[in-house]
Amino acid sequence: MSENCIFCGIVAGTIPSTQVASDDRAIAFMDINPATRGHLLVIPRTHSTDLREASAEDLTAATLLAQSLVARVIERLDADGANLLSCIGADAWQSVFHTHLHVIPRYKDDPLQLPWHPTSGDLEEINATAAKLS
Amino acid sequence: MSENCIFCGIVAGTIPSTQVASDDRAIAFMDINPATRGHLLVIPRTHSTDLREASAEDLTAATLLAQSLVARVIERLDADGANLLSCIGADAWQSVFHTHLHVIPRYKDDPLQLPWHPTSGDLEEINATAAKLS
Ligand SMILES: [Zn+2]
Ligand SMILES: [Zn+2]
Ligand SMILES: [Zn+2]
Ligand SMILES: [Zn+2]
Repeated sequence: MSENCIFCGIVAGTIPSTQVASDDRAIAFMDINPATRGHLLVIPRTHSTDLREASAEDLTAATLLAQSLVARVIERLDADGANLLSCIGADAWQSVFHTHLHVIPRYKDDPLQLPWHPTSGDLEEINATAAKLS
Repeated sequence: MSENCIFCGIVAGTIPSTQVASDDRAIAFMDINPATRGHLLVIPRTHSTDLREASAEDLTAATLLAQSLVARVIERLDADGANLLSCIGADAWQSVFHTHLHVIPRYKDDPLQLPWHPTSGDLEEINATAAKLS
């Protein structure tokens, strides 16, 4: 656990989040600044700054949890596809320095471009989407 | 092996590629339409259409190979970061339907936006970069 890390706070439960899946090593929760509807983050419970520092076990667990969530967003949200993205370093758009994988559902003809400009989502809609994914 | 799959052809050696790393389950080679200098692709040797269909073992192997290459591009190419990206479905920018992870080195203030517009790279420069990564 790293002090002042918001994702460590989410793992500890001291910072609120809407979790949709978890296992011994990783958790998945809704991004509150979604790039598209159903945007999720998957993180190892153990702190590491970025993917280079994550242990093989933690990175594997996060990746396999993300894989299951890619299938889930396509099935349950009628998404047409998804992107899995990880940003390593501020020059690669990383903004929270705890290893995470973005699962970004994609919809036919959606206008997504990366980097996206994070803006707060509608929390009611995010929670309704989370309920479909849990 | 899937007929007409260019990445299966690369695994089989019937289609040329510039490989920089491999293990029993996965190989890494240069993207010939690089989004940035040093852009690599990591694929499982066994065919699957996209990440949803890859076995846990194959996805794990590809991810851990990609993790080691993220560290390598930062060390050997003086990259300032990297993105790991996978596209699941045509609506998510997938263009080759064999599971693959993009390792995209990032450089301070580079102009990368996704989707990028694939254009042929300079093969001499790609090979020189590959030599640093091998
Ligand atoms: Zn943390
Ligand atoms: Zn992020
Ligand atoms: Zn193939
Ligand atoms: Zn691709």
